[in-house]
Amino acid sequence: MASCIFCKIIKGDIPSFKLFESDKVFAFLDIQPLSRGHALVIPKYHGEKLTDIPDDYLTEVLPVAKKIAQATNAGDFNILQNNGRIAHQVVDHVHFHMIPKPSNEEGLGIGWPTQATDMDKLKALYEEVKAKM
Amino acid sequence: MASCIFCKIIKGDIPSFKLFESDKVFAFLDIQPLSRGHALVIPKYHGEKLTDIPDDYLTEVLPVAKKIAQATNAGDFNILQNNGRIAHQVVDHVHFHMIPKPSNEEGLGIGWPTQATDMDKLKALYEEVKAKM
Repeated sequence: MASCIFCKIIKGDIPSFKLFESDKVFAFLDIQPLSRGHALVIPKYHGEKLTDIPDDYLTEVLPVAKKIAQATNAGDFNILQNNGRIAHQVVDHVHFHMIPKPSNEEGLGIGWPTQATDMDKLKALYEEVKAKM
Repeated sequence: MASCIFCKIIKGDIPSFKLFESDKVFAFLDIQPLSRGHALVIPKYHGEKLTDIPDDYLTEVLPVAKKIAQATNAGDFNILQNNGRIAHQVVDHVHFHMIPKPSNEEGLGIGWPTQATDMDKLKALYEEVKAKM
């Protein structure tokens, strides 16, 4: 998409610290990192959410993220992909963060508001979702 | 691994709300959800961190997570995989969360402690990491 900053990076119209490129994915260092080694892996297909991306543009993403985690000696780290503003997505082209977590202060902060386990509700949800799989 | 709760779920020794299974991955509802539809996709290979999992057990993970996001009508959601205690990993078998984000209060909470952009440091890091890719 012409106005998309990540499509411009893929085309090379905007320079990047490119770590990897194949016909389906592109990876580069995030220039506003949460920690040293913070990188992005993106499909070379413009889509806002994961649900918009064809499967063949997704298969290589995790092997590449793994390779970058190894190359940066990440140790502890998070893989994160956000869909929608409320879910903290800022750029509307699917991107996977590989964010090293060297300390409590650096890297991704996580809030985990667990809900009470309700087996009846889960069972009803399960029947509903399973039917659509 | 005999003592691993997710290996037991894969084997069927512990029941689960199974959404999908192939020879390489297994997916089920999280029974301690952060939001309605919170599900897990796991490789059928025991490994603690993403860096421990062979690529062929990773390729199907995102297509399956996408399928579940569609089946749960997630709308906005986060894909998250944690590596290491400090990065919020609790079960030591790689697992990808698909967590719907219906409101600010439900779903994943995210802290984003952005570091200052330092192009010289990034360039030095880039040379180091690129050499290992």
